[in-house]
Amino acid sequence: MRMVIIGSGNVATVLGSQFREAGHRILQVFSRQPVHAAQLAQELACGHVSRWEDISPDADVYLVALSDDALRGLGRVLSLPGRLVLHTAGSVPREILLEVSAHSGVLYPLQSLRRELRPYPEIPFLVDANDPDDRQRIADLARSISGQVKEADNETRLKLHLAAVLVNNFTNHLYVLADEYCRAEGADFSMLLPLIRETAGRLSRIAPGDAQTGPAARGDGATIERHLSLIGNYKDIREVYTLFTRQIREMSQE
Amino acid sequence: MRMVIIGSGNVATVLGSQFREAGHRILQVFSRQPVHAAQLAQELACGHVSRWEDISPDADVYLVALSDDALRGLGRVLSLPGRLVLHTAGSVPREILLEVSAHSGVLYPLQSLRRELRPYPEIPFLVDANDPDDRQRIADLARSISGQVKEADNETRLKLHLAAVLVNNFTNHLYVLADEYCRAEGADFSMLLPLIRETAGRLSRIAPGDAQTGPAARGDGATIERHLSLIGNYKDIREVYTLFTRQIREMSQE
Repeated sequence: MRMVIIGSGNVATVLGSQFREAGHRILQVFSRQPVHAAQLAQELACGHVSRWEDISPDADVYLVALSDDALRGLGRVLSLPGRLVLHTAGSVPREILLEVSAHSGVLYPLQSLRRELRPYPEIPFLVDANDPDDRQRIADLARSISGQVKEADNETRLKLHLAAVLVNNFTNHLYVLADEYCRAEGADFSMLLPLIRETAGRLSRIAPGDAQTGPAARGDGATIERHLSLIGNYKDIREVYTLFTRQIREMSQE
Repeated sequence: MRMVIIGSGNVATVLGSQFREAGHRILQVFSRQPVHAAQLAQELACGHVSRWEDISPDADVYLVALSDDALRGLGRVLSLPGRLVLHTAGSVPREILLEVSAHSGVLYPLQSLRRELRPYPEIPFLVDANDPDDRQRIADLARSISGQVKEADNETRLKLHLAAVLVNNFTNHLYVLADEYCRAEGADFSMLLPLIRETAGRLSRIAPGDAQTGPAARGDGATIERHLSLIGNYKDIREVYTLFTRQIREMSQE
């Protein structure tokens, strides 16, 4: 497919280079920042533009990887009737791009993408469109770069976006709390990395509910008391420790 | 080294088989449950006993992988003067085994171990002893099965045990919440596994504080509201979502 990439951030960069490697032809990169447009265009070996009116009308697919806010006003600056136009956002409805094209939809990567962290990880996609034929075309496009592609309507996509916040942003926040605590106390956070990888990696073999262990699940009050005595000065950790210990305890008693 | 394994749970099984594979000779397994002792003894190709007085006095090292409570009373049933006796607990002081032997210490695996999940993961060890020479011997023993071995006193070990609760038990609790939510809402939790692996795996290349993204870090109130509207009936998720969103927001504004 001939593609135009609208945006120059992490999602635009990673998906652009994945599509290019899969044999699609990137015609153009658009970014309002000429420097950013030029940088990504160099990586994708294509042209670049920074004015909306310079976007080529000749592509088969327009991949719009912009912020949620920028998506909302897009119909005022961009019109591509008859073209397949996709956004990549987890929590924005598929109908948002109808003002740009009747053939619009969603290609949502359920992954945390950073352009500098190569090789890029496996990317599951949730796809959707207003028209069933378009949905099929988007799914085929996604399958050209991913082995995990599912159709998901606005609500299902938003639910998985919420679940992704739990397992990515919130999990990472626990890593931040542990990292800060180790730094402040002179302990070596890197000793925890094999445990962190094991905790995540075993989920393909065992359900998380069957993997739970530790003082809260055991009801080991003595160890919990010892831990609480260590974190008196760490307000964030104390709040999280108290809440999680209660929730895990209640679940293990059900 | 000639070793006796005291205990037959996950830690006893995984460490016993790692030491055996590294060329140490396991003389005996002890468990108060004869069936458990026999099972592990078969796996380690050694003898087994179920009475304290039948434990062989001929080993170089006694690895005591018992519950914290069982460790506390051990001096009343076991005496091995002159032998190296180690416990494997994160939150129990090294002095607890002095009643068993003056040459006692700690070999704490900073990892979540399940006998059925092979191949076994990389296991960092924290080692300690009352005597500096013993500490060296324990470190050497640990290095025979691990590339990551550090000395750590009672307090440092307890601090890393607390940090391990954050990144293992609490992270797993987030996975449990996401899994339960997906089941209840008909969404496919397995679509999240690549994201979960990426969130954990990238920590070897990027500090968690630099990896934080998402609606809370961005201050994206519209998406946060949309998420909150989805989880009205999920009390545990609502409590976690509210607390984490506030903490992440505060940190990102610092």
